[in-house]
This record gives sequence, C-alpha cells and structure tokens, in this order.
Amino acid sequence: MPELLLHEYAASGNCYKVRLTAAIAGVHLERREYDIMTGATRTPEFLAKVNANGRIPVLQVDDRFIPESNAACYFVAEGSGLIPTDPFDHADMLRWMFWEQYNHEPNVATLRFWMRWIGLDNLSDLQRLQMPGKRTAGNAALKLMDDHLAATEWFVGDAASLADICLFAYTHVAGDAEFDLQRYSHIVEWLERMKDHPRFVAMEA
Amino acid sequence: MPELLLHEYAASGNCYKVRLTAAIAGVHLERREYDIMTGATRTPEFLAKVNANGRIPVLQVDDRFIPESNAACYFVAEGSGLIPTDPFDHADMLRWMFWEQYNHEPNVATLRFWMRWIGLDNLSDLQRLQMPGKRTAGNAALKLMDDHLAATEWFVGDAASLADICLFAYTHVAGDAEFDLQRYSHIVEWLERMKDHPRFVAMEA
Repeated sequence: MPELLLHEYAASGNCYKVRLTAAIAGVHLERREYDIMTGATRTPEFLAKVNANGRIPVLQVDDRFIPESNAACYFVAEGSGLIPTDPFDHADMLRWMFWEQYNHEPNVATLRFWMRWIGLDNLSDLQRLQMPGKRTAGNAALKLMDDHLAATEWFVGDAASLADICLFAYTHVAGDAEFDLQRYSHIVEWLERMKDHPRFVAMEA
Repeated sequence: MPELLLHEYAASGNCYKVRLTAAIAGVHLERREYDIMTGATRTPEFLAKVNANGRIPVLQVDDRFIPESNAACYFVAEGSGLIPTDPFDHADMLRWMFWEQYNHEPNVATLRFWMRWIGLDNLSDLQRLQMPGKRTAGNAALKLMDDHLAATEWFVGDAASLADICLFAYTHVAGDAEFDLQRYSHIVEWLERMKDHPRFVAMEA
C-alpha cells in the first residue's frame, strides 16, 4: 500500500467516512487538518495542488490526489471485505453510495452544516427558503433507508460494506440537524450494529 | 451476461449514460419507456417493484434492480475497457462520477430540466430563486472540466472510461440550459473525441 495522507476537516462526515473505512479495513492514514471555516481549502495553493474543486476530503496517494469522499473510501478499501466481489452486489453498493451523494448528503449534511456551523442567524434568505425542502427530502431519504433496513441487516448482501459506512457518516449525526431518528427504528438498530464493529472508530476519534 | 432491461425516460441524460455505456461496451439492453412528466415512475407499482426512490434510470438484471445511473453504467461495463484496472485510476474514475452527481448534474441537468421541460413560466418562486446559483455552479463545473481537459484527452488515463461517458451525457446538451460551451474549448474538443468513437450512439438513437 502506498503512503496515504487524508486532507480533511475532522468534523465533516465526508472526511469521517474515509477514516472509518481505513479503521475497519486496517489501513493506516496520515491526517492533515484544514479549517474550512476560514477558507483553508480555497487558497491558491490548495486549488492548484490538492483539489481544484476546493473541497475536502482529498486522499493523497504518494504524490497524487483523489477528491470525493466515496472515491477515496473505495481506494482505501480496495481488496478488503468492505467491497463485495459479486458484480450485482458491487453495483448495488455503488448505487447506495451515489444515492447518498445525491439524495442524502445535500439534505441531511447541508442542514447540519447550516444549523450547526453557519448558524440560523447567519443564513442567507435563499438558504432559509431552501430549508423546508431539504427537511422534507432528508426525511424521505431516511424513510427510504429505514424501509430498506426493515428487511435486511446491511445495505448490500450479508455484511457491512462501503455502502453502510458512507451512509452511516451523516445519518448517525442527523440529530445535529434536528432530524428525529427515533422515527426510524430500523435505522437506529443498524446504527448500533455499525458501532458494534470491533474496529469501529467514533467521528471524534 | 444476464438479461438486462433499462427502465428509462429516453430524453434524460442519466438514462442516456446507460445506453451509451452499453453501446460502447457491446452489451445488449432491452428498453422500457416511462413518461416522467405524468408520474409514471411514482405509481405504487413502480415504487414497490422497480425503485422506491421513484426515479429512472433503473437497470433490471433478471429479476433484480439497480437504480442510480452511474451504478447501472458500472454494472453494464464490468470487465470492459471502460473501467480501468489500476487501483488509482479506478478510484479516480469513481471520483469524477461522484463529482458529476454532486457538482454537475444538480446544476447543468436541473437547469436543463427546468428550462426545457418544466418551462420558465411554470417554475416555483423557489426554483426561480435557485437559478442564478445553479448557473454559477454549473459554469464552475464546466470550467473545472475544461481546465482538466487542457492537459489530457480523457478524464482518467489514456482512454475513454465511464468518467467520460457519465460527464458527456449532460455536458453535450448543456446548451439546452443556455450554457455557452464555446467558452470551454477543451470541452468542445473532448465532446468531438467522444462522438468519434466507432460505437458512439446519439442521445436520440
């Protein structure tokens, strides 16, 4: 395995995904913290060298860079039991990871960021107007997960995969954005299964 | 290869991705059309059987289903030259595919849908208020692609991969949403390279 350095902001669920993947896969990560609240990922140097998109996490692999949390997780987990080898299950895992980025993160994670980091008083009018739609879509995403978990212990197949890790990251802190997880009993049980993994690490670790 | 049926709305770029992947990979797809404008993907039967998320495309593999366009592309292309085998390149391909769903599609594709399918006169006030932000973010996405393509012919490695196909789908029709592609000369050249592929199929085919 090459030397891996995670460029991150530790409180970001997207960054936590990569750390949790590495912990469960037994892969060592170096870490470098950036303060996104003061623009540390928008400096000319960061944009030129680390990620032209100005976002973290970015996984540095020797002298090359992989932005996008779910892609970084895939690289870290390559060859481990977190990635199913059956082609259908593999595509089904990716399906949940793409769904997470399109249907879950922009609602659950964005509301968390707005409410806990930016603060309600500092939101723009447009952000404030978008909140009810993100609340509805976030609850729809949680309900879809809960319905899926009513029939199965893990999102894909019969073991935890990257789909579970990528969905766990923002779901387990959805309460930060005032989503009521107690409405979703199957999610609550699945969160406990994730935390019971012998190599689980908490977001704050 | 099992029997593959694409549940789709042909004018959707997300559905076209799967057809273009199948054409280039030499895989046969059956197709079933749904009219998303009349709610054909939100019927109780569709939600129960095909996709609880009420969206197309969905790839049916015998009697199982893969929602999410980019995951469906991956299943169709499995084992073909469209998926790099080198672990870094593979993760880098996924990076562009996740980036497409987070930074490109919600801006370029959504503006196209609002302007050409819903119609400006029929947009809600909230949709109208979001248009300038989506315009800015869409141009930022196109600029990031253009800058990347200044130094390379394909998004990853030295051949077309799923990253190119997934980004091609909505980029080549960005003019429908009044994005001026002539501002992005490297994109224009890359679009031509894609169209020159011997097994290229047009969106309308």
